[in-house]
Amino acid sequence: MKKIAIILSGCGNRDGSELQETLSLLLAIDRRGWQYQCFAPKGEFTPVSYISNNELRNRRDIFEESARIARGNILPLASYNESDYDALALPGGMGAARNLSTYAFDGTDMEVLPLVASAILATHRAGKPVAAMCIAPIVLANVLGHEGVELTFGGDCAAADHATEMGAVVVPCLPEQAHADTAHKVITTPAYMSATNISQIFDGAQALVDKLAEML
Amino acid sequence: MKKIAIILSGCGNRDGSELQETLSLLLAIDRRGWQYQCFAPKGEFTPVSYISNNELRNRRDIFEESARIARGNILPLASYNESDYDALALPGGMGAARNLSTYAFDGTDMEVLPLVASAILATHRAGKPVAAMCIAPIVLANVLGHEGVELTFGGDCAAADHATEMGAVVVPCLPEQAHADTAHKVITTPAYMSATNISQIFDGAQALVDKLAEML
Repeated sequence: MKKIAIILSGCGNRDGSELQETLSLLLAIDRRGWQYQCFAPKGEFTPVSYISNNELRNRRDIFEESARIARGNILPLASYNESDYDALALPGGMGAARNLSTYAFDGTDMEVLPLVASAILATHRAGKPVAAMCIAPIVLANVLGHEGVELTFGGDCAAADHATEMGAVVVPCLPEQAHADTAHKVITTPAYMSATNISQIFDGAQALVDKLAEML
Repeated sequence: MKKIAIILSGCGNRDGSELQETLSLLLAIDRRGWQYQCFAPKGEFTPVSYISNNELRNRRDIFEESARIARGNILPLASYNESDYDALALPGGMGAARNLSTYAFDGTDMEVLPLVASAILATHRAGKPVAAMCIAPIVLANVLGHEGVELTFGGDCAAADHATEMGAVVVPCLPEQAHADTAHKVITTPAYMSATNISQIFDGAQALVDKLAEML
């Protein structure tokens, strides 16, 4: 029985965790007979309308909104201890680029939320796998890029260029598959960076969990 | 290629559409090679904190929040036309009992939002299947109960008693399965009325789509 920690960034692809990716990841973990535990940092963010794309006036809290995905079963990221889990995973969605980091605003000058960076580093230094989907590998590029980690972005795109600039090695990967950098124990899948439907998202999540199983 | 219309009620199990149920339903539809189109009514609702369970001060809009699940690809329920779709489905979540109807507040004195009731009735009268998960069958009990439709609620519970009072015939069903009332073309599955994990939710959604395929 393996236990996977998951860092959420809100609720929805435009300003939080992408829902199809997150739920596909939870489903793939559960179907393997493993457990998952969701975490999220606390802190306000500016939500976006999914109809107009405009920013909304009333700010929301990353932890509160992430709890929607977890049916309330969520822990503050400040309480994450890598020794209690076998691996750490970050689903995609623009929350990774807006709430967990400043990538959406600052590009390669991005900063990663200290709690997120330290959770990734602590897991990585403990020799445990770190996984990410869609745009979330940009966070790994910032934190682990200096080690030359291999990451997926689904093809040529600005994020792939930015990850390369930060030292990462960008590798091609179909959305139904996942890429394992076995040397660095980093697993990524492009998800909605290149997928066009929810079945590809689930296949990619399942491929990611399969690669994880090979490492654990 | 079948096309399934889905009515959402917000984003999250406590005050909207349950996310695991909704995404499992979309995944099961897509994996069969069918299409889905999400709909939601417009109108404000009182959101709930998934940490404290308290009601939140800033009201939200059902359509805007439902759009999060649909990645923005959603239509106002007012534009639903049963002739464009092969079936209609309602995922669960307390949004069905708080936003699409007043069941959470009024019990068997509940009222169903007129747009929701008319979408169900128009689909049903056109001889097309109507499906529902978790607590959403209570909406069908109110709209179609007088016909003696068979519905699932996962076991003995207040909702099952209330549905019976409204004329429905409550039938036992495991969360991994779905029940088809072939005479009335109504398919239901208990989902989180009795499920304990996301794999059961997906299996139930897939069973529901399998029963749907037998009717179409």
